[in-house]
Amino acid sequence: MLSRRNFITQSVAGAAAIPMILSASLPAAKPKGGKKLFNSGDVVLFQGDSITDAGRNKSTQRPNDAGSFGNGYALMAASGLLSRFPEKQLVIYNRGISGNKVFQLAERWEADCLALAPKLLSILIGVNDYWHKRSYGYDGTVAIYENDYRALLKRTQNALPDTPIVICEPFAIEGGTAIGDKFQEELEPYRHAARKLSEEFNTLFIPYHSIFIEALKHAPAPYWSADGVHPSMAGAQLMANAWLKTVAGFNN
Amino acid sequence: MLSRRNFITQSVAGAAAIPMILSASLPAAKPKGGKKLFNSGDVVLFQGDSITDAGRNKSTQRPNDAGSFGNGYALMAASGLLSRFPEKQLVIYNRGISGNKVFQLAERWEADCLALAPKLLSILIGVNDYWHKRSYGYDGTVAIYENDYRALLKRTQNALPDTPIVICEPFAIEGGTAIGDKFQEELEPYRHAARKLSEEFNTLFIPYHSIFIEALKHAPAPYWSADGVHPSMAGAQLMANAWLKTVAGFNN
Repeated sequence: MLSRRNFITQSVAGAAAIPMILSASLPAAKPKGGKKLFNSGDVVLFQGDSITDAGRNKSTQRPNDAGSFGNGYALMAASGLLSRFPEKQLVIYNRGISGNKVFQLAERWEADCLALAPKLLSILIGVNDYWHKRSYGYDGTVAIYENDYRALLKRTQNALPDTPIVICEPFAIEGGTAIGDKFQEELEPYRHAARKLSEEFNTLFIPYHSIFIEALKHAPAPYWSADGVHPSMAGAQLMANAWLKTVAGFNN
Repeated sequence: MLSRRNFITQSVAGAAAIPMILSASLPAAKPKGGKKLFNSGDVVLFQGDSITDAGRNKSTQRPNDAGSFGNGYALMAASGLLSRFPEKQLVIYNRGISGNKVFQLAERWEADCLALAPKLLSILIGVNDYWHKRSYGYDGTVAIYENDYRALLKRTQNALPDTPIVICEPFAIEGGTAIGDKFQEELEPYRHAARKLSEEFNTLFIPYHSIFIEALKHAPAPYWSADGVHPSMAGAQLMANAWLKTVAGFNN
């Protein structure tokens, strides 16, 4: 009983849960106050590929609904916002679709982005623009990725000029089963294009590639992702925490 | 562009994301340090009913696997531990089963708890012990709930004397569609029995009923749960945050 009793009296916060990985890989949060992040009823939209999709039920597509969100970083980031800002009555959608590249986002952008009129838009796209070329016969190039992405961002800012955008860096986790020879080297220009577009369009940017490099100092690749592309529970929560820290100053 | 620019320069942490609901409904965390919460490779187990189950894929039952975890508070709490403690290489299972009452936990306890040898065990059970009596012809009583639960806890402490236990309070969220006349009044003795057993067995206790009463000051019932029994994304994340705060001192 003694060990149990010690646990009860000492465990609360005794764990000293310091989010080391994000402290090391993200700029320190500098609270400035003043600016309201959200207004009541704001729509927030997560867009992307399978990493965002994460097995969501596409027959429902409801906002703020777990089944419609899958079980990846978008569920976790959205749930973080919803639990922390109940007064805001945010309306949060996940519209990621497995396998998507930029041109496929563009094809469905009217219905799956502009018509929803998001007040905050988060996009994670790019790994398939490279990976499907490498392994699935897609004939795109990094120039096509960059130009398609630029056109999508222009179209978005024209239609939704006041909507802040979050660009999430495409990433590959070294040691994952899908990350073969030259994968990192060949994905790099896609990552750089995403960062360049973030600067060009003055968006928030989440450096997921750097975050996972830092994460690998703490646990090996399979802990964060089996194939190096699709995050595990640990990887998805780390992504959500980075998103919440960057967008809303959470110190998860 | 100006509003976007303001967002970029001011939003980081400007949101002043203070977890008000938990500050109001949980004791302040008092870091004491010293005691290690987890050892490397420790097994953590979430047990319970549909709230814990949350649509998990029961054909896989893998630890640390999103599909095997569903999309409720257990996914979120487990992901929180995994993302924050990578060096611990925790092995976390969800074995909640929809519809379960205490006697059904007892029937599968050997395989679904003791054989897994958890180093930390979390149990949320009780709403069906009442609700299925109220609405589905179950003939149990609060005395049966309490006695069955006591026997289960004794059996657990005998088999796993060093394993800390977390008892989660059964709850009903006023205003949910399933919470009819006298539901709260009649659930109350079940809640009290769970709290009494927590004291009797010196376990951690998460006062979910009080937490949701506090949450209702910030948003109406459907925001936290449609039926008052099964939490929404917001409700599940709030539960996970309370769990992580109580067990590991997270300040989510």
